[in-house]
Amino acid sequence: MSPAAPFPVAPSEFIPPGSRFHTLASPFPMKRGGALRGARIAYETWGTLNPRRDNAVLIVTGLSPDAHAASSTDDPAPGWWEAMLGPGKPVDSDRWFVVCVNSLGSCKGSTGPASIDPASGRVYRLDFPELSIEDVADAAAEVVHGLGIERLACVIGNSMGGMTALALLLRHPGLARTHINISGSARALPFSIAVRSLQREAIRLDPNWNNGEYDDATWPESGMRIARKLGVITYRSALEWDGRFGRVRLDESSPFNGGEEDPFGLEFQVESYLEGHARRFVRRYDPNCYLYMSRSMDWFDVAEHGGGDVHAGLAKIRVERALAIGARTDILFPVQQQQEIAEGLAEGGAQAEFIGMESPQGHDAFLVDIARFGPAVRNFLGRL
Amino acid sequence: MSPAAPFPVAPSEFIPPGSRFHTLASPFPMKRGGALRGARIAYETWGTLNPRRDNAVLIVTGLSPDAHAASSTDDPAPGWWEAMLGPGKPVDSDRWFVVCVNSLGSCKGSTGPASIDPASGRVYRLDFPELSIEDVADAAAEVVHGLGIERLACVIGNSMGGMTALALLLRHPGLARTHINISGSARALPFSIAVRSLQREAIRLDPNWNNGEYDDATWPESGMRIARKLGVITYRSALEWDGRFGRVRLDESSPFNGGEEDPFGLEFQVESYLEGHARRFVRRYDPNCYLYMSRSMDWFDVAEHGGGDVHAGLAKIRVERALAIGARTDILFPVQQQQEIAEGLAEGGAQAEFIGMESPQGHDAFLVDIARFGPAVRNFLGRL
Repeated sequence: MSPAAPFPVAPSEFIPPGSRFHTLASPFPMKRGGALRGARIAYETWGTLNPRRDNAVLIVTGLSPDAHAASSTDDPAPGWWEAMLGPGKPVDSDRWFVVCVNSLGSCKGSTGPASIDPASGRVYRLDFPELSIEDVADAAAEVVHGLGIERLACVIGNSMGGMTALALLLRHPGLARTHINISGSARALPFSIAVRSLQREAIRLDPNWNNGEYDDATWPESGMRIARKLGVITYRSALEWDGRFGRVRLDESSPFNGGEEDPFGLEFQVESYLEGHARRFVRRYDPNCYLYMSRSMDWFDVAEHGGGDVHAGLAKIRVERALAIGARTDILFPVQQQQEIAEGLAEGGAQAEFIGMESPQGHDAFLVDIARFGPAVRNFLGRL
Repeated sequence: MSPAAPFPVAPSEFIPPGSRFHTLASPFPMKRGGALRGARIAYETWGTLNPRRDNAVLIVTGLSPDAHAASSTDDPAPGWWEAMLGPGKPVDSDRWFVVCVNSLGSCKGSTGPASIDPASGRVYRLDFPELSIEDVADAAAEVVHGLGIERLACVIGNSMGGMTALALLLRHPGLARTHINISGSARALPFSIAVRSLQREAIRLDPNWNNGEYDDATWPESGMRIARKLGVITYRSALEWDGRFGRVRLDESSPFNGGEEDPFGLEFQVESYLEGHARRFVRRYDPNCYLYMSRSMDWFDVAEHGGGDVHAGLAKIRVERALAIGARTDILFPVQQQQEIAEGLAEGGAQAEFIGMESPQGHDAFLVDIARFGPAVRNFLGRL
């Protein structure tokens, strides 16, 4: 919870201390109906906007990250993309003015189901209107305009952010010259829909969820644990885990070791790895926000913009150059989906390249396999 | 619940009506400690044992199937491997005397946590001793001996049954001349451990599980729903679902359609597919049995028989011929694991073949892709 936030902060909003805030148009219409009033977007920036205002790069994120992509003077804590963003790094803040926005609907400073509805003074919870990726994109576009930027040098989207970036390019033609789509997709396919549907069901089946009316004392921790662990299982790859964990057992001294009294407790290292991820997440992400963000991904389909054809939808996008990359071990956003994006953007006239990386780390590779993803991003931006 | 069972049947035992029963040695020692008294194995048979008693084929199964692999005069209902087993079928009951056993620890007629402990008259629940794949194999071997069979022509194991078959061959040398391992593995690897660990956690987090002390009125239905849906997600493949479900929505008339009032309800066909699977399973499989069977797979590791090396363990097995097959889209028991089995058995002197099928249906392919798995099994058995 940010001491600096210039608005009332609800208990399950987790706002990085370096956040800045952009107030959205009010009303802010939502794609699937309804509108927000007095809504805001949290963002952070790195580098300096040049006098021609043509060196801006926008980063839109996956489901859970906040806008704190990297450390800064306002917040020296390492960010979630610390190795990729900063002076001299692949996204070079010595050259680019970089903006990262927290997604609309999230709980990391932008308005979402965990935020206080200014009209009622109460937390939105399930009264928040249905959220779509297009709304997330529209809100990000408003931040860009609000910073006095007419045209981005590049919009970079990771994971869900890859969807957000495509929605932004479709709904705001001309807003970006180029695009990097990392482990993203132009539409949700049934395996990922099934996984997310099950994550949401686990939250909703938790009696503590209580139709969204939980509080700190009655947090749906079981549901969030399951949702997070299932997420982590699909974010990595079996190949990586074979090498990383194999069949290694926990030490007897491990705090995770259930001991002999609990034959169903944690015994293997891979189980404690999941447990660690769950413990770091369950009380740091609002369950209702999770439901809204998750469902928005299922609904996203660029084909809606192409008369039912995803290639035709992608071909409506006008960018000069594009790069679509991903990991060949990604089971959630498989590389065929990044290849599809590159092909569709090329049909629209872009000079578009696809790279399927041999990273073992699956969907999360863009966060950890900097040796592969770093040079690809650096080369693309370097040639602009 | 079988009206014919010659013993008291507990409420969450689901026994096919054609079941026969073999009483195990009493005490029956368990690998990880403890022993069972008065335990039994349910089994079914097809075809006729020839006078030389050398035409017997044993089938050991995955986690959930019962012994009713195919229809018979005792039970004309279709079995779970109906297309594969019967007169003139790939496992040809005109030639072979086929025995399928329900696994020890299951709730389909064999003794397990859902059964009544004859010593106390109460359902075992968590008082059942820790179950290992080796116990399942030892119990199956007793059935074989009980039928007067000294040497099987072949032991066929599917999925978990692939583990059981390997354990049987290691612990009962000479019991089988040949072996078919289908979508099995010689040890659990971390991706499958993680999935099963999460399935068990979902059951254990369900307040109704209540440390194993549920009944019909307080069944841990939420936990079983999540466990089953996660299972189905890992039993199939993204590739199959892209073609089968795509992004097709449910009809408004579908009983699964949550309607507009429930934005988190079922909307896509893939979600109703999972829902159907869950509804058919949650009250038809005992949750405690699920926990025991699931954990037994995590523990299984042929390397224990090979001084820590899985190939050395496999090479201790003596069979004349072997076939290890699986689907290239299987994410739970990936084909590299069937390849490993064939290589290890070859090191032990078997004439061993590996086939990685191009089936799109993932782990479940052996149940549905009869066009590929049928001929492979037919050819192998036909050459014996």
